[in-house]
Amino acid sequence: MPQTSAVTRHSTRSELIAIEPEAVAEARAAIPGEDILALVVETFEALADPTRARILYALSRGRLCVRDLAVLVGVSESAVSHQLRFLRTRRLVKGQREGTVIHYSLVNRHLDALFREAEYHADHVLQGLPDHPHP
Amino acid sequence: MPQTSAVTRHSTRSELIAIEPEAVAEARAAIPGEDILALVVETFEALADPTRARILYALSRGRLCVRDLAVLVGVSESAVSHQLRFLRTRRLVKGQREGTVIHYSLVNRHLDALFREAEYHADHVLQGLPDHPHP
Repeated sequence: MPQTSAVTRHSTRSELIAIEPEAVAEARAAIPGEDILALVVETFEALADPTRARILYALSRGRLCVRDLAVLVGVSESAVSHQLRFLRTRRLVKGQREGTVIHYSLVNRHLDALFREAEYHADHVLQGLPDHPHP
Repeated sequence: MPQTSAVTRHSTRSELIAIEPEAVAEARAAIPGEDILALVVETFEALADPTRARILYALSRGRLCVRDLAVLVGVSESAVSHQLRFLRTRRLVKGQREGTVIHYSLVNRHLDALFREAEYHADHVLQGLPDHPHP
């Protein structure tokens, strides 16, 4: 018979006992499922780049073509095209051909809101503002 | 005298002419300044990790201690402490001591909203939903 292992004598992760079980139950409901969480993390990865962030902020006001995005972001048209391909693959932007020009836009309104909240958060932090009063 | 260089014969970035100048002017107003943009990108970097994302989603419902976060996220208390130090440095969470326990919470309400929008976006994409009608 093997000796009692260290695992059985010491508390393991799964044996951790919550200090405030009600708070844990409520918080558990706030954590998205695996599929959603994976896509959320993938989305944040895509946004963690200054050029891509500029492109997406620019598109938050409406559709734009590659040339106009290049003018706005201050990089070449080929650099913009490269980033747009990346952002299309990640399902953050979509393109629509109108005549000879393709216009790009954000895939949905939640992204606009997400960028705005990220900006407000950054503004709060930089200005050292207190949090808004909680209801 | 040097020959005329390629640069003067070909259009360079700064010479790019906008196709829709009004759309460019409007979009320019949507791109945050350098300070804000740098912090936004830093924030997205911090969120692009499944464990950190789980911790932050859990905190979006209210304050929690290290133990309860470990129970929720399914990692050790020391792993949670490590991630909380990272998140405090990035000014995403704050700690408040109450007796012998430190409770952690998100630094402001904009982060809650940001996570919610990221989740809605992911849900839209996964379900292949069309965008909400634009006003």
